[in-house]
Amino acid sequence: MAKFLTDREENYAKWYNDLVIKADLAENSAVRGCMVIKPYGFALWENIQAALDRMFKATGHVNAYFPLFIPKSFFTREAAHVEGFAKECAVVTHYRLKHDEKGKGIVVDPSARLEEELIIRPTSETIIWNSYKNWIQSYRDLPILINQWANVVRWEMRTRLFLRTTEFLWQEGHTAHATREEAVAETEKMINVYADFAENYMALPVIKGYKSVSERFAGALDTYAIEALMQDGKALQSGTSHFLGQNFAKAFDVQFTDRSGKLDYVWATSWGVSTRTIGALIMAHSDNRGLVLPPKLAPLQVVIIPIYNNADQLAAISVKAADIKTKLEKAGISVKYDDRDNNKPGWKFADYELKGVPLRVAIGPRDLENNTLEIARRDTLEKRTIEASSLYKLVPEMLEEIQKNIYARAIKFREENTFFIDKWEDFVDILDNQGGFIMAHWDGTAETEEKIKEETKATIRVIPFDSPDEKGSCIYTGKPSERRVLFARAY
Amino acid sequence: MAKFLTDREENYAKWYNDLVIKADLAENSAVRGCMVIKPYGFALWENIQAALDRMFKATGHVNAYFPLFIPKSFFTREAAHVEGFAKECAVVTHYRLKHDEKGKGIVVDPSARLEEELIIRPTSETIIWNSYKNWIQSYRDLPILINQWANVVRWEMRTRLFLRTTEFLWQEGHTAHATREEAVAETEKMINVYADFAENYMALPVIKGYKSVSERFAGALDTYAIEALMQDGKALQSGTSHFLGQNFAKAFDVQFTDRSGKLDYVWATSWGVSTRTIGALIMAHSDNRGLVLPPKLAPLQVVIIPIYNNADQLAAISVKAADIKTKLEKAGISVKYDDRDNNKPGWKFADYELKGVPLRVAIGPRDLENNTLEIARRDTLEKRTIEASSLYKLVPEMLEEIQKNIYARAIKFREENTFFIDKWEDFVDILDNQGGFIMAHWDGTAETEEKIKEETKATIRVIPFDSPDEKGSCIYTGKPSERRVLFARAY
Repeated sequence: MAKFLTDREENYAKWYNDLVIKADLAENSAVRGCMVIKPYGFALWENIQAALDRMFKATGHVNAYFPLFIPKSFFTREAAHVEGFAKECAVVTHYRLKHDEKGKGIVVDPSARLEEELIIRPTSETIIWNSYKNWIQSYRDLPILINQWANVVRWEMRTRLFLRTTEFLWQEGHTAHATREEAVAETEKMINVYADFAENYMALPVIKGYKSVSERFAGALDTYAIEALMQDGKALQSGTSHFLGQNFAKAFDVQFTDRSGKLDYVWATSWGVSTRTIGALIMAHSDNRGLVLPPKLAPLQVVIIPIYNNADQLAAISVKAADIKTKLEKAGISVKYDDRDNNKPGWKFADYELKGVPLRVAIGPRDLENNTLEIARRDTLEKRTIEASSLYKLVPEMLEEIQKNIYARAIKFREENTFFIDKWEDFVDILDNQGGFIMAHWDGTAETEEKIKEETKATIRVIPFDSPDEKGSCIYTGKPSERRVLFARAY
Repeated sequence: MAKFLTDREENYAKWYNDLVIKADLAENSAVRGCMVIKPYGFALWENIQAALDRMFKATGHVNAYFPLFIPKSFFTREAAHVEGFAKECAVVTHYRLKHDEKGKGIVVDPSARLEEELIIRPTSETIIWNSYKNWIQSYRDLPILINQWANVVRWEMRTRLFLRTTEFLWQEGHTAHATREEAVAETEKMINVYADFAENYMALPVIKGYKSVSERFAGALDTYAIEALMQDGKALQSGTSHFLGQNFAKAFDVQFTDRSGKLDYVWATSWGVSTRTIGALIMAHSDNRGLVLPPKLAPLQVVIIPIYNNADQLAAISVKAADIKTKLEKAGISVKYDDRDNNKPGWKFADYELKGVPLRVAIGPRDLENNTLEIARRDTLEKRTIEASSLYKLVPEMLEEIQKNIYARAIKFREENTFFIDKWEDFVDILDNQGGFIMAHWDGTAETEEKIKEETKATIRVIPFDSPDEKGSCIYTGKPSERRVLFARAY
């Protein structure tokens, strides 16, 4: 069997990078930190987009589009916001190139310098709230429930395909409300939408909770996040929803007349999910043979491979395969028939395992005679021979089974790798020797959080919504604590 | 009746701008030349995207995503290309802001200057062909049929909402082929896809043809375009497809081994359609009351408006309206029931006329008694009272009728405003006094083309594919010509 990848156990980081490249999902571009999302990877993103977009619309949101550029003066108007993003932004200073007079080729035209520099959006709160100012006068103009699908740029120093790139694709919701309660409810609603998407589409169990003050979005009063556990024991934040209070309304002077005729500032939320989720998807489920994709998001759900010794056999198999393909596609299943003649079946089997196609159907001459097919599952690698006529009932059932199975496996993995820890030496030991989620007590101070991070590289991922009241002592300082929080090393 | 707009006849440019803003499609942003596409305008773009994306996929294309940034050195590699775009591009020179030491607030950090400037893509041939270099070794790797949905930036000096903006949204196809013939066939295929989309979705008749040498895309050997006639007698280019020959393959050294084992450069095409099409849609069909949208692209196809004097009446009407809405939506029709209590029915009628909703259904207390409804068409403004039960059959029929009618009107308008002209004074007279498409002879030289442009502002829009052989004399120089070409003033 062909071997494409470094083993996970040997070098997880290399396994991940190899997998992204060899499964043809993405590659590094010539521009530092920017990736090319290749057709197979982009098809995955299209499926993610389509599912999320339906969920956003079902919860009353509409899409719009705001400029890529943010004037520097807008960017600096909310103090915490600019602190959070100023150190990593791409700045446009000129708007023209010209032929160099000294023959140095094409150079920036110094006479085309912008009066005010433009920042490529790292996130769009400022440019959007500057527009909302003109859209909102009265409570009748509220709520505004807008989402944007866009590219954003953050000048990251260390980048990794999908997980952290200078340019990435995402969606950013920006909503405006008449009351604090309504904005808080929206913030909660959207973290629930994200959790629902992660669990039901990505087959990724997540922990919902509050971020600690130091991990909040720059400019938010509260940040909710969903955190998932990767197979190497590290956490990956897979979506955030921010309650922004009246910070941006105040920064951009967005006031409205409420029902009682009183003027007040508008309440805001923002929430986002990015191409990073593809990284989460890969790291949560895949194995040493390649991707394992949840059927609900897989670009290709079934691949049919002919097994033949001569052209006559291939011709007969192709007739059968075309029939199967048509029938499955009618049932809304995506199917590819791979009759390329330059690779052997064994190579193809390995290639589609690498690409994570959930089901493989193989047809040989004996199958035609016996009216059988061989069907193989990517998640368990089980193969079985079935009666050809049972395929149409079996495929949807098996796709559902795979979706459930990989979710169940991820749940089991998380359960086995979640530790309730009360002693500092155990805390350190687990982080150093096996990784995982650690539920531990914390005294609630940023100082302690920072010290734990310095000593162990672990951070508070979230204070889980469902963490029960439980008196205890901080794992680091021994000071009193009211509940456990979730620690982990993270991507 | 409420009056929202300047009349077309009075000031066409103002009518257009008012309409875009008052119909809530888009507005200017705080960033020079960049627009905000508002939810109603973006919903239109989503429908355009969805239809085109289906057509691209049906013709074998897949989507991918390439970086926003283009290194300056790539940009300059194809000589004609850089000439075409260097004068209007946004340049990123720095990657960090900082607090000014002299207390001037947030400034660009001079120590974070990029070694090589990055250009925000005005089009992506260069960055994409730099990737294709690594993807293509053999004829087996061809063709590559990739499309990208993206934002691009061209630093335009005079901007107009949708028609010409600094940042705009578009799709750009970039294909790679083993032979010249195949690349030419692809170029033709895609201009036909665009024409099909324009005519069948936008209800916009178009003329397909070749661009003259001076109007070609920068770096192309041939540019095909579709040209449509707007109501003010000006032309609008609504899609282009370029045969790039081996220019970009040579600039980026992309060679492949063909079937015979010989090394050759790869053949290329590119093709694009942008948010400009929304401008075309507006200017082709709309009137002094507002937008007239083709039903196949309208964000909202039917609006239901209650007419009532008291809460009891409204409650009874709302039950009926909810039932209609559910049934129409089941048939795949988009419907809104507008029961807002802060506007009178007459105001709502005018507002949905402004927004171009193809069908309006009004329900009053007498309709409930008589089991009738009033239905009104946006395109003809005809109203009629119908039996309530006939609605479900009538709505799809009427939507189709409207789609056909506005296309037929546009065809008729174009026929009435296309002139076969043989005398220079008639040519000038028509341009100055009524506008329209002019089919005239041309001697085939760039000099004559340029002089005609200087004297009349008219350009050769296309040399139509179907312009028959016809000997004649150039409208300007009197020199011999083999066929007529299409002249017009253009957006």
